Amino acid sequence: MTSALFDFGPLLAAGLPPPAAKWTGLAKFSFIGGNNDPEQVPVDGLIAALTAALQREGKTLATYGLAGGPQGYRPLREFLAAKLGRDAGIAATADDILIVSGSLQALDLVNHTLLQRGDTVIVEQETYQGALTRLGRLGVSTVGIPLDRDGMRMDALASTLAELRGGGVRPKYIYTIPTVQNPTGTIMPEARRAELLRLSQEHGVPIFEDDCYADLVWDGQRPPAIHAMAVNGGVIHIGSFSKSIAPALRVGFIVAPWEMLSRMLALKTDAGSGALEQMALAEYCAPHFATHVPKLTRGLRVKLDVLMEALNAQFGTTAEFEAPKGGIFLWVKLPDNVDTLKLCQAALAAGVAINPGPEWSTNKVDAASRLRLCFANPSSEQIREGVAVLADVCRREFGVPVRIANVERAARA
Amino acid sequence: MTSALFDFGPLLAAGLPPPAAKWTGLAKFSFIGGNNDPEQVPVDGLIAALTAALQREGKTLATYGLAGGPQGYRPLREFLAAKLGRDAGIAATADDILIVSGSLQALDLVNHTLLQRGDTVIVEQETYQGALTRLGRLGVSTVGIPLDRDGMRMDALASTLAELRGGGVRPKYIYTIPTVQNPTGTIMPEARRAELLRLSQEHGVPIFEDDCYADLVWDGQRPPAIHAMAVNGGVIHIGSFSKSIAPALRVGFIVAPWEMLSRMLALKTDAGSGALEQMALAEYCAPHFATHVPKLTRGLRVKLDVLMEALNAQFGTTAEFEAPKGGIFLWVKLPDNVDTLKLCQAALAAGVAINPGPEWSTNKVDAASRLRLCFANPSSEQIREGVAVLADVCRREFGVPVRIANVERAARA
Repeated sequence: MTSALFDFGPLLAAGLPPPAAKWTGLAKFSFIGGNNDPEQVPVDGLIAALTAALQREGKTLATYGLAGGPQGYRPLREFLAAKLGRDAGIAATADDILIVSGSLQALDLVNHTLLQRGDTVIVEQETYQGALTRLGRLGVSTVGIPLDRDGMRMDALASTLAELRGGGVRPKYIYTIPTVQNPTGTIMPEARRAELLRLSQEHGVPIFEDDCYADLVWDGQRPPAIHAMAVNGGVIHIGSFSKSIAPALRVGFIVAPWEMLSRMLALKTDAGSGALEQMALAEYCAPHFATHVPKLTRGLRVKLDVLMEALNAQFGTTAEFEAPKGGIFLWVKLPDNVDTLKLCQAALAAGVAINPGPEWSTNKVDAASRLRLCFANPSSEQIREGVAVLADVCRREFGVPVRIANVERAARA
Repeated sequence: MTSALFDFGPLLAAGLPPPAAKWTGLAKFSFIGGNNDPEQVPVDGLIAALTAALQREGKTLATYGLAGGPQGYRPLREFLAAKLGRDAGIAATADDILIVSGSLQALDLVNHTLLQRGDTVIVEQETYQGALTRLGRLGVSTVGIPLDRDGMRMDALASTLAELRGGGVRPKYIYTIPTVQNPTGTIMPEARRAELLRLSQEHGVPIFEDDCYADLVWDGQRPPAIHAMAVNGGVIHIGSFSKSIAPALRVGFIVAPWEMLSRMLALKTDAGSGALEQMALAEYCAPHFATHVPKLTRGLRVKLDVLMEALNAQFGTTAEFEAPKGGIFLWVKLPDNVDTLKLCQAALAAGVAINPGPEWSTNKVDAASRLRLCFANPSSEQIREGVAVLADVCRREFGVPVRIANVERAARA
């Protein structure tokens, strides 16, 4: 190189997020991200499914969209229509479904269809970090509604909607994760869903229902989807195969009225989502989904128990949590003096990755001493070791947990 | 349903594109889109590759990014680094490459990193429709540079850059498809690439090199990539597996300085591109790419000949074109009185899909009587039949081609 390096700096668009750091590998003990249990990926089933689908129709890979149009591989949409009817009570046909590249693309498509800078949306006070980040980048105001053990509180939602209306603000949507809420793990009962729909209709604010974790309920029982209960079509429903099969596949879906699907399709200028994933899922899931998922959730339930036992052993009463009704994460409260943003950095230096509470909440003060721990990916052994390291770091940084009897016992185990 | 349907209309963001129409299937004779030859998809090779890769490391599907970080599956990036070095002269390592969901995501990431409303970019006068559409939606001004048989004309580029500089405008990039230009099929010679780089450096305007079709050169010889010739790093290079393997896979890549990659990574909030496609490509391509591509291009060359013969037979001298040096499309000039936007509609009604010229050019007047015909997907039989139907429609609508001897001869063949 003889000349000075080209400087892109002056050409960058305004308002870009900070540049990404170079990736340095996964933490030794990783309790972050929606990663799943590697032992539960149905590898042999996926190989058999791909082989069968490709032998039958591999030549269609030569055509964008597998010659099935921009809404996605039709057999996958047909599986979903049947599954959503059976599990969630949703009466949808393949034509009502849009396959997307993970539910993150679903978030983007819904957001870009409805939102512009200065808009307001309603979210659950504790909610998915990726949703909050996106809304922040779009310059949208988020109003968080507190949760209780049954999910979003309707008294708080009613007063917030009334207040916003009083100020002349019509929110663009109410974003909810009603079935295994992220990060709290609650499930909104049917009666509260009905009340949510009533408020949605009264205020003319649609519901954006994110059902990404809905397959992972311990007892296999879930209320009908809000989409299923809506008589007026004012619900956009999204879901994913990331939690039920494997996150690296990047396949999600949207169920919405054509009025909205047609707008989102116009924005989905990616020439279709990945064909192999769609073929693999359609071929595998039609015969196997209903037996795969209960097996998966039994394994996850065991890991949750390991995590809760490890927290009790290492943190004693210092760590407060409620067992979630399903899912892959636990929402934990530490003593008020613990700043989980700082804990996160110190823990990472010790090889333990956690999600600090403030990134998963609109209430940064309340969430300051909370954290999210994902338990699906690490082995039981890693969960025990990782929690022990986390407790050590927390003790060193914040003086809690103090060394107590059961901690000593655990250390000898 | 007892209540009125929810009306999303008042909630839609401003400036959305028109809603998508319902998909009604592929045209009987389809000469549009970057579809490939179904007979040339290496189905058995992909099945073997997927089986091997999944047996070895299928459990990593449980982790976003296959435990390889956000830049994409490392073995695929390593294959690309080797391939780009061998074929295009690019000295890149796996760390310089970002795997994306098709080169369309590459366009989006580059655009969102550099562009904002009111900016100016330079493009080739005839260029990829998807690039023009994106720039239009972003509110960016496009200045088209005329092409000749060697691609973008440097005299015209020099005067345009000088003119823009005179007006105080620094374009954000020069977008070029130098190797099998879309839609004209030209290949820019090495000397002109050097001149392009000189102008780029003189004016401080980076080059955005789209090498999507660069594998499909009839004689297998291609000049070094512009990226390979740049000593100052001012080139963003993108490519794709859509044309060399299969478009439905949706795998593309970006080679750029970390200064740019780190910005694009920060905008790539999709939690990774599809894992199965990346695994399949890495495993298949490392041993087979170098033998697959020449076989593919030989088949495409045959189809091009079929198309040119059919055009000569059906349109006679009414259709003017130059044989491209590679690729999957032919850029055709019809008599001035033919409006290909109208022809496109009439042909579609007769079962023939074509790309009208004005959608592939910044010069709508010059392109009004031109069209793009993709020849990879239809069979030779369909090409002949489709061109015959197209000629009939064109004759009916515009009076050309007149019935001439060779048309009669072709009809009897």
